[in-house]
Amino acid sequence: MRAMKMYGNWRSAAAFRVRMALNLKCIACEEIFIDLDAGDQHKPEFRTINPQGAVPALFDGDGPPLTQSLAILDYLEETHPEVPLLPQNPRERARARSLAQLVACDTHPLYVPRVRNFLMENYGLSRERMLEFLRNAFTTGLGVLETRLAQEPGTSRFCQGDAISHADLCLVSLWVGTGIFGIPTEPYPTVKRIAEACLSVEAIARAHPLRQPGAPS
Amino acid sequence: MRAMKMYGNWRSAAAFRVRMALNLKCIACEEIFIDLDAGDQHKPEFRTINPQGAVPALFDGDGPPLTQSLAILDYLEETHPEVPLLPQNPRERARARSLAQLVACDTHPLYVPRVRNFLMENYGLSRERMLEFLRNAFTTGLGVLETRLAQEPGTSRFCQGDAISHADLCLVSLWVGTGIFGIPTEPYPTVKRIAEACLSVEAIARAHPLRQPGAPS
Repeated sequence: MRAMKMYGNWRSAAAFRVRMALNLKCIACEEIFIDLDAGDQHKPEFRTINPQGAVPALFDGDGPPLTQSLAILDYLEETHPEVPLLPQNPRERARARSLAQLVACDTHPLYVPRVRNFLMENYGLSRERMLEFLRNAFTTGLGVLETRLAQEPGTSRFCQGDAISHADLCLVSLWVGTGIFGIPTEPYPTVKRIAEACLSVEAIARAHPLRQPGAPS
Repeated sequence: MRAMKMYGNWRSAAAFRVRMALNLKCIACEEIFIDLDAGDQHKPEFRTINPQGAVPALFDGDGPPLTQSLAILDYLEETHPEVPLLPQNPRERARARSLAQLVACDTHPLYVPRVRNFLMENYGLSRERMLEFLRNAFTTGLGVLETRLAQEPGTSRFCQGDAISHADLCLVSLWVGTGIFGIPTEPYPTVKRIAEACLSVEAIARAHPLRQPGAPS
């Protein structure tokens, strides 16, 4: 099988989600480091790959780049179904996707560097005051996630039943951010339990941001 | 067929996306108005339906509520495939989903009332200054959407080819906001062309926010 190629960065939560799925599905993929601190995502050569100037961008053979982490997860599911990362039942799939989107739509996009920089540059906020916005995004998202996972009967070892799904990949991608940004985790015991269950899986542990090239040691 | 039931609001871009899909698929659905201005989404009786306190929430028969607009769109696609709103080819599906997520993940969540209120209350910003954040979200999202649609060969009458897909439903849900918030639209001719093509379809026009109960006349 031809290897895939992904433009990513150790720090990107979205690239992390795709890296976990690739590992779990045993898909060979070369990851090319885009230096977000140096602004490589805004250079013309990368903008031709993704006009949004964001990672991940995935190449599968000669086709055009695939972008947006959840769209890539669905693409991998459809083209490499052998290690499923969504349940078969439509209602269970919808629940897994809803939990995934609670993170990937309603939480993560609020604290990306683009937004943080806009808050500091446009409103003249200090980094510390800007971080209030980020912490609010985290605690709001984590709070709803905890409530849903603790209440809804679909929750088991993982977010939806006993198999890892897109919901778990998104949950872990949020969870690792709590360490980076110093978000207290005590109020979220169910999220913590599932994150730890995920991180005990070798394919996920190996995808961890801090185990990628470029990450601080 | 049993009718579905959706908790929504005329103003919600996310409920609008689902309403368009229901109409296009000819699925009977009763829409129950949640008064977002009165804070009905935060009342305990609605929080038991969606702990996130957000619309839409869709009931299909006796099952638990379905939440998150893109997850609902996929659920409708899987359970009511007869009027397809995603292409069959995995690469084309991935592109349609990527464009949809550019709106539903990276643009819309930045300007919802929750975020706007946080900016005003936490940073003491006036409404006018807060709106700079909203306008930045709109123009950034619209700019990338325009670039991609104008450049990528998959674009035709609609975002992906000549059939309406999730990408178009998201595009229209963003487009109607440009009128509400006074966002200049001249820089986005391709977005405009596709939005107008969508709005010329009766099932979409009928779903328009301003044609729903509670909307200003």
